[in-house]
Amino acid sequence: MKVVCIGSGNVATHLANALKAKGVNLIQVWSRDLTNASELAKSINAAATSNLDEIDRSADLYIIAVKDDAIPTITENLKDVNGLVVHTSGATPIDTLSAHRNYGVLYPLQTFSKAKSIDFVDVPLCIEANNAHSLELLKKVANKLSSPVYEVNSEKRKILHLAAVFACNFVNHLYVLSDKVVEHFGLDFEILKPLIMETALKVQSELPINVQTGPAVRNDEQTMIKHQDLLSDMPELKEIYQTLSKSIKKTHL
Amino acid sequence: MKVVCIGSGNVATHLANALKAKGVNLIQVWSRDLTNASELAKSINAAATSNLDEIDRSADLYIIAVKDDAIPTITENLKDVNGLVVHTSGATPIDTLSAHRNYGVLYPLQTFSKAKSIDFVDVPLCIEANNAHSLELLKKVANKLSSPVYEVNSEKRKILHLAAVFACNFVNHLYVLSDKVVEHFGLDFEILKPLIMETALKVQSELPINVQTGPAVRNDEQTMIKHQDLLSDMPELKEIYQTLSKSIKKTHL
Repeated sequence: MKVVCIGSGNVATHLANALKAKGVNLIQVWSRDLTNASELAKSINAAATSNLDEIDRSADLYIIAVKDDAIPTITENLKDVNGLVVHTSGATPIDTLSAHRNYGVLYPLQTFSKAKSIDFVDVPLCIEANNAHSLELLKKVANKLSSPVYEVNSEKRKILHLAAVFACNFVNHLYVLSDKVVEHFGLDFEILKPLIMETALKVQSELPINVQTGPAVRNDEQTMIKHQDLLSDMPELKEIYQTLSKSIKKTHL
Repeated sequence: MKVVCIGSGNVATHLANALKAKGVNLIQVWSRDLTNASELAKSINAAATSNLDEIDRSADLYIIAVKDDAIPTITENLKDVNGLVVHTSGATPIDTLSAHRNYGVLYPLQTFSKAKSIDFVDVPLCIEANNAHSLELLKKVANKLSSPVYEVNSEKRKILHLAAVFACNFVNHLYVLSDKVVEHFGLDFEILKPLIMETALKVQSELPINVQTGPAVRNDEQTMIKHQDLLSDMPELKEIYQTLSKSIKKTHL
């Protein structure tokens, strides 16, 4: 099986390296930026290009891992390939690729950063394909990488992407805000790290609703008033404090 | 050193067990509820009581781990003891205990649940004491349990408690909301667990502001509109989506 990797960002890099480690033959990397394409290509022993017309037409699988709004341009330029064309986006419907004969989606439900390696074996892979043949090939590739492989249609994938915004993007922003609070008062974020880990660990074995703690869930109005007083210099944080406390109280009525 | 544990909730239970494991001599457990007192007392081989007058007056250390608003009653009933009296609350000033000769605070900056054991060696312990003698004893006890021991005054402890609401209580509520989203559309929370772990892991080595991802930080208005459409049946989640997205955009201007 010959694979072309289209993109050189976080998802492309982690996915290409994980496939390479499983013995998959990656023949080429495309990126808008030739330096980026070359860097990833070198690490997986593939060719590099920044020219869409130069993409190898003989591959069995094309993995598009670029920004959502760049997918249409890529797919337009790959209309003539026979191999399976998949994108890796949570928010993009499978139909975006319908100009191809064989197409699908390989969406890793995980957050990637370049600096941090990740074991794909634990990454939930959500797959979807336009026909049985495409699905079979995609399953084969996904099962090489990861144990949790889910067949998820475009409608449900959109929901997972939304849930991930709450569970990851918004959560990280709360880490940012907690850092702001300690910084504002001359303390260090370091001291919060064990708490952050334990909070995430708890919900690996318990439903989050069953392990809610804090002043809002126990209706400790005194503490909530004191906290809001401390945030009087930080109106934005105060608003978020109020909105989330209200929502906690309502959830646990 | 003889220690009396006052309380039998999550903090009391974890703290008493950790002290016992370090060879500390816990002689007695008090709880409002004798069954609860007996249960914890049995596990650490101590006596149990639900009567404040029966608390052993000869101990070197009294650890008050009860609800914040119950602390004044306890301290009122222990005025005659000579040992060191400490509470474990993040939001309660040290002065609440000023009726005692020797008093202080031992605040573990962690979230505890009865069902899940925890290694105290990683739990940041924030200590404060009213005099050098009390501080020395408290340091000795804290260092037995944990490596990160911080001297933190009441003012700063209040800030840490507030930051913990953002980094733990509010974060857990976002897990609750992400669960609501997937449930609402017939999907399972299970699939989000690796993402939750990785999001917490990332900020152990990077500042959260440097690893923010998602539609809000990249100003992807299209995706944000689609997400809000999906939440049209869930106005509360939609409000939180808007408030947090606005805050992310503002933070990363």
